[in-house]
Amino acid sequence: MINVTQTFLPPIEEYTLILNRAWRNKWITNRGELLIELEAKLSDVLGVEHFFVTTNGTLPLQIAIKALGITKEIITTPFSYVATTSSIVWENCTPVFVDIEKETLTIDCSKIEAAITSDTEAILVTHVFGNPCDIEAIAVLAKKHNLKVIYDGAHCFNVQYKGQSIFNYGDVSTVSFHSTKLFHTGEGGAMFMRDKVLYDKVLYHHNFGHNGREKFHGLGINAKASELQAAMGLAVLPYMKTIIEKRKQLVEIYENVFRGLEGIQLVRFREGATRNYSYMPVIFKDEGTLLKVKKALEDKDIVPRRYFYPSLNTLDYVHSNKEMPVSESISKRILCLPLYYELKEEEVKLILSIITNTI
Amino acid sequence: MINVTQTFLPPIEEYTLILNRAWRNKWITNRGELLIELEAKLSDVLGVEHFFVTTNGTLPLQIAIKALGITKEIITTPFSYVATTSSIVWENCTPVFVDIEKETLTIDCSKIEAAITSDTEAILVTHVFGNPCDIEAIAVLAKKHNLKVIYDGAHCFNVQYKGQSIFNYGDVSTVSFHSTKLFHTGEGGAMFMRDKVLYDKVLYHHNFGHNGREKFHGLGINAKASELQAAMGLAVLPYMKTIIEKRKQLVEIYENVFRGLEGIQLVRFREGATRNYSYMPVIFKDEGTLLKVKKALEDKDIVPRRYFYPSLNTLDYVHSNKEMPVSESISKRILCLPLYYELKEEEVKLILSIITNTI
Repeated sequence: MINVTQTFLPPIEEYTLILNRAWRNKWITNRGELLIELEAKLSDVLGVEHFFVTTNGTLPLQIAIKALGITKEIITTPFSYVATTSSIVWENCTPVFVDIEKETLTIDCSKIEAAITSDTEAILVTHVFGNPCDIEAIAVLAKKHNLKVIYDGAHCFNVQYKGQSIFNYGDVSTVSFHSTKLFHTGEGGAMFMRDKVLYDKVLYHHNFGHNGREKFHGLGINAKASELQAAMGLAVLPYMKTIIEKRKQLVEIYENVFRGLEGIQLVRFREGATRNYSYMPVIFKDEGTLLKVKKALEDKDIVPRRYFYPSLNTLDYVHSNKEMPVSESISKRILCLPLYYELKEEEVKLILSIITNTI
Repeated sequence: MINVTQTFLPPIEEYTLILNRAWRNKWITNRGELLIELEAKLSDVLGVEHFFVTTNGTLPLQIAIKALGITKEIITTPFSYVATTSSIVWENCTPVFVDIEKETLTIDCSKIEAAITSDTEAILVTHVFGNPCDIEAIAVLAKKHNLKVIYDGAHCFNVQYKGQSIFNYGDVSTVSFHSTKLFHTGEGGAMFMRDKVLYDKVLYHHNFGHNGREKFHGLGINAKASELQAAMGLAVLPYMKTIIEKRKQLVEIYENVFRGLEGIQLVRFREGATRNYSYMPVIFKDEGTLLKVKKALEDKDIVPRRYFYPSLNTLDYVHSNKEMPVSESISKRILCLPLYYELKEEEVKLILSIITNTI
C-alpha cells in the first residue's frame, strides 16, 4: 500500500543509543536531560527562543487560550485540521469563522473586520500546509482591535517567513510533532512565545503550575513530553535536511506535471516564505473529479487523504449558520497525495499517470 | 541519593524488542498494535472491560468532566495531588471541598450532603494512596441527589475492592501511568467506564471525535497514547508481581517499626480492599516534627516528599474560604518515605533509624 504519509523512523539502534541515557539516569519524564537537549537543538535549527516541547500539538492550543485569558469569541479559519476548532470549543470559547483566500487557503483578512464583535478576544488561525497567513494584515487588525493572535503552525516545522522562523510571529505559535508530521516525536508538539513573561506563565501551565515540589504558581494541567518522545526527536532531527530535500524532489515531480494540466489548482505559497514540503495538496475542478481520482488511486492500493474535509464551520457542535463558500468548496475538491521520505519517484509517476488518465 | 521514588525500568533490550514491532509496522501512534495488546493484557490483569490507555493521567479527568456534561459544582477532596482540583478548574467547573476522614484520608462522606447545592452535578474524589473512598456511601448519595461519580484512581493500579477492580466503581475511574507510579508507560494513564455507551462517547472524545477519516462524532481533543508508551507498558507489565511483592516486604519493615512508635500515625486501609503498596505515607504528631525528620533525612541525602501538601482548598486559584481542618492538619504532618523496587532493606532500616532518633 502507498499511504498519504509514512512515519520516518531512524534505525532503531540510533533511537536506543539515545534512550540508553534516560535508562542510565532512571529518568523518563518531567523535563529530563534528553528533552532539554532536544529543545536546545530545536532552538538552533529553527531559530526560536522562548518555547518548549509538549506531549502533543493540541494541548498547546488549549493552553494558549487559557494563558491569554480568552473566554469569549475567537476568529478562526474553517479550513484546517479539526483540532484548531475543537480546542476553541473545548476551552468554552466560541469559534467565529471567516472564510479563506481561494489561492493560499489561509484566512481572508479582508473579511475579518466584519466578523469582529465586542466579544472578540483573539484570532486563532492556521498556516495551512505550512503556507503562512497574511501575518502583516493580521498584526494590523490585532493591534487596532486589541486582539491576541495564536497561530496554529502544526504543519510549519522549518518554515521561515521574512528571514526568521514563522513561530516567532503572533502572541503564541504552536506546532505538531505527531508521527505523520515532517519532524516528529511519536506524538508531540511545541509552543512558542515572543514574550518571556508569557513563556514563564505558560511553562507553569503545562506542568500543573508546579513551582518546585510544594508550591504552585497558578492553574495547570499536564502537557509534559517524556524522554521516550525526546529520544525520538533527537534521533529524527539529524535526518531533517535529507528528508526535506527528498520531499522537495518529489513535490517538484508532482507539481511540474500538475502545472501543465487543465482543471488542476495548486496552492499558491505566500511570498517571503520558505516551503517545507510537508504536504502535496491538489485541488480538482469539482468533487466528482476528486472522488473519481480517489477511487482510481484506491483501486491501485494508493491512499490519498481529504485534507481538510469537511469545512470546520459545518461541524455539528459549532452551531455556525454562516456559509463559508470558499472553504466549503475547497474542502470538497482538495486531496493530499502521498508524500514521504521513502516514497519512490516511480511511485509518484504512477500516481500522476493514474490522475492524468482519470480527470 | 535515595529519592522518594525511582522509576522501574526493565532491561532496555526488552523494551527495544517490543518496540521493534512498531518499527516494522512503521506505526508509532493512533491506536497501534502495541497499544491494543497492552489494553488486552491490562484487561486481564486488572479485570476491567470498558477502558482505554491515554497519554497521561490528567486528560482522563478532564475528558470525564466534559463527557458527563458537568459544568457547575463538583464535590471534591482537598487531600490529593493537585491534578484532581486543577482538572476541575481547567474545565471551568467549581470545586467544592469536603474534608477528609482522619484515619483513611479519603473524603468524609458524612459531610458531603451539607456541601450539596442546586448546582452540584458530580462527586470527583481520590482513592488516596490506593485506599478506597467509602464507595457504598458515595453511591447512595449520588443516587439520592442525581450526581455523577468520578474516581481519581491515580494511585490504584491493581487495587481490588470487594472482589473486583476498584476501577469498576463510579461512572468513570481514572489511573495514572506516570513513571513515578507503580505501573507506568513513561507518561500515561487510562480511563475506565462501567457503561459501554459512555465508553464509546469518551473514546471519540480522546481522539478529536474522529469517526473514520472524514467524519466526526462530537467534540474531541488529543489524549492518545503512542506506541513508545505502549511498548514501555508491555515491557514493565511482566514485572508487576515481583515489584509489588518487593514493595510489600519493604512496607512491612517500615510499618512494623512505626506501629511501635509513639506519635506516629499510619493510614488505615479500608476493609474489603487489597493494598498495592504504592506509597509509604507516615503522619507525624505536628509539622515541626515532620520538618525535623525531613531535614535529618535530607542531611543523609535521603529525599522524602510531602505528599500531599498543601491542602488543595488553600490553592490561590480556587477561592475557597471554607476551612478543611482535617486535611489542612494532615497535609502539614504527612510525609511519603522512599519506596521503590530497587530500594534495599538496609536502606529502609537506615531511614527508620534516622526517624526514630529524630522524633
